Amino acid sequence: MGKIKTGWKLPPLPLPVALLGANVSGKANFFTIVWFNMLQDDPPLVGAAMSKSHYTRQGIKDNKTFNVNMPSSSMAEIVDYCGLYPGSKVDKSNLFEVFYGELETAPMVNECAVNIECRLMDSKEFDTTELIIGEIVEVYCEEKCLAENKADYRKMDPMIFFMPESPYIKTGDVIANAFEVGKKFGQ
Amino acid sequence: MGKIKTGWKLPPLPLPVALLGANVSGKANFFTIVWFNMLQDDPPLVGAAMSKSHYTRQGIKDNKTFNVNMPSSSMAEIVDYCGLYPGSKVDKSNLFEVFYGELETAPMVNECAVNIECRLMDSKEFDTTELIIGEIVEVYCEEKCLAENKADYRKMDPMIFFMPESPYIKTGDVIANAFEVGKKFGQ
Repeated sequence: MGKIKTGWKLPPLPLPVALLGANVSGKANFFTIVWFNMLQDDPPLVGAAMSKSHYTRQGIKDNKTFNVNMPSSSMAEIVDYCGLYPGSKVDKSNLFEVFYGELETAPMVNECAVNIECRLMDSKEFDTTELIIGEIVEVYCEEKCLAENKADYRKMDPMIFFMPESPYIKTGDVIANAFEVGKKFGQ
Repeated sequence: MGKIKTGWKLPPLPLPVALLGANVSGKANFFTIVWFNMLQDDPPLVGAAMSKSHYTRQGIKDNKTFNVNMPSSSMAEIVDYCGLYPGSKVDKSNLFEVFYGELETAPMVNECAVNIECRLMDSKEFDTTELIIGEIVEVYCEEKCLAENKADYRKMDPMIFFMPESPYIKTGDVIANAFEVGKKFGQ
């Protein structure tokens, strides 16, 4: 047993699953993303990489707004549906109870525990994809997912996608506290 | 119960935990990252956002190589240690069994199940951070984490960090199969 060179293009990674929301031609649209993360904390920037052919991309550019909605594991079927079929083929505007926030043009999914509302700030193009970069203007959270004014991951019950071909999975047990357990190392 | 505006700068997200490895002044160094993800699949690009003050940043620029190592949950203590203390303060070159691959200057952690070796391709600066962009040149995987030539998440046992302040957590049970369960929606 040991290490082998796999030749894989896509490494196996546990990635957060979200619905990216944006209005396209005046209608709410949502697609499933796992290629997103934070880029900076102050001001807070989030980046989402998507194919240049993505239907939603033009909507984001037109309105200069989008958002990232965090679904719970009970939403797996509809979340996967949003990833399977493009907005150019199916109308997703009535799939969810939509609400709008500060920016007025970024449709957020009420059924998702957390909604991250973003103003388009910048972008960076690659060969076939573009990194859409948004500044977070507000984070909405379902009250029932809070514990001591913080989001509780067990209540939020987020979905993880194990890239590239594997299942959606749930979060599991606590391993240790970050920024604490490392202080024990070497002692 | 309902949605509340939290005013949070950092949204609650379940993020993959990795050790970013690079040589700095000829010595292997590693620090803990959670702000990384894929940017493109072909050619495969990975992006990692880090503070401009990061000790490792200069090493990545000097060698034009780095890598992303995926630890298992049993490594939480040493992984957290690598995040708590900068390479400018502590020597991390002997913490792990290090091996080098194609690029010769990117130190990979043998104890990690998966190692993603990257050639620095590009970068993008923000106010206080920089997105380091690498092309994946090879993915190494521990043989014992394979099932039918694919990585098995249960064998890999990756760490998730629930941003911003909460614990490291394990991956949990399967919810459903991606690209499949959504076909049932509306039927």
